[in-house]
Amino acid sequence: MTSCLKPEILMTGAGGYVGAPTVRALVALGYHVHVMGRKDPNIADTTFHSVDLLQETDLRAKIEETGATALLHLAWSVTPGKFWTDLVNCDWVAASLRLFRAFTEAGGQRIVGIGSCAEYDWSASSRMTENISPICPGTLYGKAKAGLWSLLEAIGQQEGLAVAWARLFFLYGPGEPRGKLVSDAINTLLAGQMFATTSGLQKRDFIHVEDAGAALAALVRSPVTGPVNIASGQSIAVRELLSHVAEAIQADDLIDFGSRSLAKGEPMELVANIDRLRDEVGFTPRMSLTEGIARTVEWWRNKAPVGRGEK
Amino acid sequence: MTSCLKPEILMTGAGGYVGAPTVRALVALGYHVHVMGRKDPNIADTTFHSVDLLQETDLRAKIEETGATALLHLAWSVTPGKFWTDLVNCDWVAASLRLFRAFTEAGGQRIVGIGSCAEYDWSASSRMTENISPICPGTLYGKAKAGLWSLLEAIGQQEGLAVAWARLFFLYGPGEPRGKLVSDAINTLLAGQMFATTSGLQKRDFIHVEDAGAALAALVRSPVTGPVNIASGQSIAVRELLSHVAEAIQADDLIDFGSRSLAKGEPMELVANIDRLRDEVGFTPRMSLTEGIARTVEWWRNKAPVGRGEK
Repeated sequence: MTSCLKPEILMTGAGGYVGAPTVRALVALGYHVHVMGRKDPNIADTTFHSVDLLQETDLRAKIEETGATALLHLAWSVTPGKFWTDLVNCDWVAASLRLFRAFTEAGGQRIVGIGSCAEYDWSASSRMTENISPICPGTLYGKAKAGLWSLLEAIGQQEGLAVAWARLFFLYGPGEPRGKLVSDAINTLLAGQMFATTSGLQKRDFIHVEDAGAALAALVRSPVTGPVNIASGQSIAVRELLSHVAEAIQADDLIDFGSRSLAKGEPMELVANIDRLRDEVGFTPRMSLTEGIARTVEWWRNKAPVGRGEK
Repeated sequence: MTSCLKPEILMTGAGGYVGAPTVRALVALGYHVHVMGRKDPNIADTTFHSVDLLQETDLRAKIEETGATALLHLAWSVTPGKFWTDLVNCDWVAASLRLFRAFTEAGGQRIVGIGSCAEYDWSASSRMTENISPICPGTLYGKAKAGLWSLLEAIGQQEGLAVAWARLFFLYGPGEPRGKLVSDAINTLLAGQMFATTSGLQKRDFIHVEDAGAALAALVRSPVTGPVNIASGQSIAVRELLSHVAEAIQADDLIDFGSRSLAKGEPMELVANIDRLRDEVGFTPRMSLTEGIARTVEWWRNKAPVGRGEK
């Protein structure tokens, strides 16, 4: 007879854009997920624990209630257009440190935190590789993430926890908040309006959010420690990405390339080395750009059926 | 008629070892010092504001009450022998970020925070120079300080505050807590007992705490931003320092050099470049080692008059 006991994991940010597919992937891997946060996201097969991470003063007791020995910490404030410089980044570093400390003292054994490609030096030209490429964040958000990882790594080393740091690259997919490139492009085109954008010659590493969620779950389950890029490993011109969007909506004429200029500090290429994700975690992104965009357009059509996309 | 208005400064950690001489130096420079903390250190010519920095949730209101536009943040937990790896370092990063954010939102214009020589890469062999020497802390304490400065620097840049970061080197002087090299050596020798120590061949940059306090006050008053080493710029063998102690107590025979081994990770030399302190802040340490040790021994004699030092 095999044991019916599921591994218990504590997760924050489970109701968010990345959190939602991550919970599904964890449940599929056999985890019992304890969701901690302010609002109950009402996710099937999970247990909710009401905690305001920015305010709670007795986190340790709340953590001990869950019995979890692994923590996946996704919660953060990432208001589109604002999060790069938002002082709330400081509050999330503070809240995350309190959470990591309380989890350690509650007997936790594994912590996976969420970093960002924004931790790397964007003026360096090569493929971003964990433990090799220089860390030199240009923004408060990037510095908050890099500083937090530096401390989490030290906590792990001296307290004997297995800690990992998932550096997310560029995401797209169902559930993306408005105010981001792909969500705004799809909604504008579905409404039959012109979408003003840059020349789109800059290349980025985009990963579908379902792949990102599955990668995070795989990372949690693996024994891998240290930073791990969560990305496709593919460098795609924004122009090509948006062309896929226009094609899926049959609205090639509605994208106004070059009517906006690239923001200062935006490099021509940002792409990840995903050797660690593929070879050590054992996860390879599955979703093609064509399929990923098609699913995302479909999700928005079902959510907000407007414009000529309905024809 | 000249104005009688004094510049108002908010200070944390004012009752501590470094804080005490720093307050005196600020008052001497004409500042009105608002002391914020849990316990009133009862310092003449200052105003006390009761705040537990690790717990307070409405810091902004407390800060606005003071009317201060400059902040000198010294408070931290530095229990001798424990602070390098103490998880409370995480709490102090969190508390400091909340303080910096609240001070920024309350209209603050200048922040001086306290860093450490522990932020530098101790395996690098040359004189530690701000903005040049590599930052690579080997301890949780060093990482906490380095991570906090990275965020304070970003806050300053984007919010328009003049922020500086005082990297303290090795301190000695009156008021030093027990459990540190000089305080323990003096007390052991004053008690007429043998002081067991390392070979003492390692060289360190020691600065008298009165000089450190005066340097901090000068840094606050200056327009200098960025990291500034607070040190003597002199490399002294620990053996030489302790010989000064033994001489002041006339107890040369009581130091047992070589009976303890140097801790792992302790380099043979740590010394600061103090060009920024001297040329930009305009402060040069004044106290000679002979005078500094004599004053420290005198302070301990008056505090705990025991042993053959009394003969």
